[in-house]
Amino acid sequence: MNRRALLGAAAAAAPVALAAPALAQAAPELRWRLTSSFPRNLDILFGTPELIARRVAALTDNKFQIRCFPAGEIVGGLQALDAVQAGTVECAHSASYYYTGKDPSFAFFTAMPFGLNTRMFNAWNRHGGGQALANELFGSYNIVAFSAGDTGAQMGGWFRKEVKTVAELHGLKFRIAGFAGQVFAKLGAVPTQVAAADIYPSLERGTLDAVEFVGPYDDEKLGFARVAPNYYFPGFWEPGARLHLMINKPAFEALPAPYKAALEVACAEADQEMTARYDAGNPQALRRLVAAGAQLRPWSREILGAAWKAAHELYDETSAKNERFKKIWESYRRFRDDEYAWFRVAENSFDNFAFTAQQTVR
Amino acid sequence: MNRRALLGAAAAAAPVALAAPALAQAAPELRWRLTSSFPRNLDILFGTPELIARRVAALTDNKFQIRCFPAGEIVGGLQALDAVQAGTVECAHSASYYYTGKDPSFAFFTAMPFGLNTRMFNAWNRHGGGQALANELFGSYNIVAFSAGDTGAQMGGWFRKEVKTVAELHGLKFRIAGFAGQVFAKLGAVPTQVAAADIYPSLERGTLDAVEFVGPYDDEKLGFARVAPNYYFPGFWEPGARLHLMINKPAFEALPAPYKAALEVACAEADQEMTARYDAGNPQALRRLVAAGAQLRPWSREILGAAWKAAHELYDETSAKNERFKKIWESYRRFRDDEYAWFRVAENSFDNFAFTAQQTVR
Repeated sequence: MNRRALLGAAAAAAPVALAAPALAQAAPELRWRLTSSFPRNLDILFGTPELIARRVAALTDNKFQIRCFPAGEIVGGLQALDAVQAGTVECAHSASYYYTGKDPSFAFFTAMPFGLNTRMFNAWNRHGGGQALANELFGSYNIVAFSAGDTGAQMGGWFRKEVKTVAELHGLKFRIAGFAGQVFAKLGAVPTQVAAADIYPSLERGTLDAVEFVGPYDDEKLGFARVAPNYYFPGFWEPGARLHLMINKPAFEALPAPYKAALEVACAEADQEMTARYDAGNPQALRRLVAAGAQLRPWSREILGAAWKAAHELYDETSAKNERFKKIWESYRRFRDDEYAWFRVAENSFDNFAFTAQQTVR
Repeated sequence: MNRRALLGAAAAAAPVALAAPALAQAAPELRWRLTSSFPRNLDILFGTPELIARRVAALTDNKFQIRCFPAGEIVGGLQALDAVQAGTVECAHSASYYYTGKDPSFAFFTAMPFGLNTRMFNAWNRHGGGQALANELFGSYNIVAFSAGDTGAQMGGWFRKEVKTVAELHGLKFRIAGFAGQVFAKLGAVPTQVAAADIYPSLERGTLDAVEFVGPYDDEKLGFARVAPNYYFPGFWEPGARLHLMINKPAFEALPAPYKAALEVACAEADQEMTARYDAGNPQALRRLVAAGAQLRPWSREILGAAWKAAHELYDETSAKNERFKKIWESYRRFRDDEYAWFRVAENSFDNFAFTAQQTVR
């Protein structure tokens, strides 16, 4: 049937079509599939899209249902963005920095070494132009993305031996990816790819010297304290790590306005909920890790300083090669510098006194 | 008409009533009034319930409308809780610590000297038992309350003269209320009530020595830098200050489930949005205040230490007099101590290096 004939048929059917479908369209029954980049046993990470799904169902009188699948059941964890772009699934819960191979600019929306922390990312995203920049980037991949969860500042990972100087990083085989891996490469370490199942035996045999993951709550599940007990902090490459709900753009745009609002607001709630779960779970997990033999070690000032310089060199080099990265880095950096200056005053001065007062005020 | 007659009439009407009202009940048209405890010119504070109202309307296809009134238009700013309890309005946006005259336990849900910061409050509220304790307290006032906005750590206020020692606090007339005022009273200061309009002339004449308010963004509107230029930090009595949406309980319980969900989730979004707006607005406001003559001064270690001790004495004294306060303080304190210990590790070590690296890494 040609286009004119189709239009003619639609016009003829209009008086009938308007009555029933108009009501159905206002609150249609929908079933979506969501692929997560995480396995089910990382319960906070995998639980976040489940929370979003429950909230969206509650807001729509159970008409809009989203079923969440762990990594690997529909597509692999690192294929989530591709699957959403192609429309294989309607949406995914993933970390944008898994896709820096497509464009390094994706790193900004998860975590940057010495970048924005959890609260600062919220401020940049909502009131510093971040969401608009995310819309441009994700939009060019046929995706609408909403911030949906943050881990808070992470730990620096597990090391077989103590590492006090930049010289001691030389040749260190460290399982760390992305910009963080490139920063360590500039410091002489060897970012190393090791499949998840091989990490523990590789550390045991010494074919791997170190591994970083998330923070106490998730790290505890992996048992690294037994083979690489030096637990460094902070994970200066992830002062917060943001997850996103990535939605196929045509699927999103076809939604009635209240369903769009339901997705967006459920993601904002997920931001708070994920961080709250980590913040509530990490203290006890850290205590148990220390009891199991983890040695808490702060990075030396020398390593932090060298890493700061290496990270900023990398941002300049990447900006010279990628216009989009340059544009986002200029917004991000200006905002970060302002936030750092302000947070030093009220937040950091409070923290520096109060966090130790229990032990020190006499 | 007596009750039996009413029931009979309803039963007779049932076959007709079921058809139309059943649909209407699923998504009824509602108009609620909200009284804020804040004036319109404090645009972030007053803007937060406006955001909630817009979000609830969007989620309900504009069927559930909430109209926001600034303090004083329906009832005064400090009568918000009473108005909700009595059902004069369906809901209010207010700070629970305005009602410590009814029960000191209300302080926990806004701010406590040396208490939980913004993220820690989220964690306690969602996963440390905080919301259940709030439900008990607000429930006994016929109210359902949801966390709905947080200022972040506040500033310590404006002082005509420098204050370096506890001795220099003696006799200092400081406009500060609630537990914070009682802490300063223990240190020898004189918490002083001064009507809002009289603060500036009182500081000018010296009948008031100091005043505290919020942080740079809101403080800038008041012009205190001209008459009391010493701007102390941090506001150790408000490491975060939480607002709540307070809802008349019968009005809430009569809502259809999706409307209840809409209110709850819109409040979670408001938590993030208010803090993001303050975090985005404070850096530039602080810069302008310093340009206008504000002298940034950190509290001395002596004053912070004495205040820590005074605050904890006060919590013990209040616990001895009030069972509810004691119960909440035990939950709150245990949670706080765990959070302080954990936040020292990843968050605070990151902050301490990164916030100054721009100036110090060479």
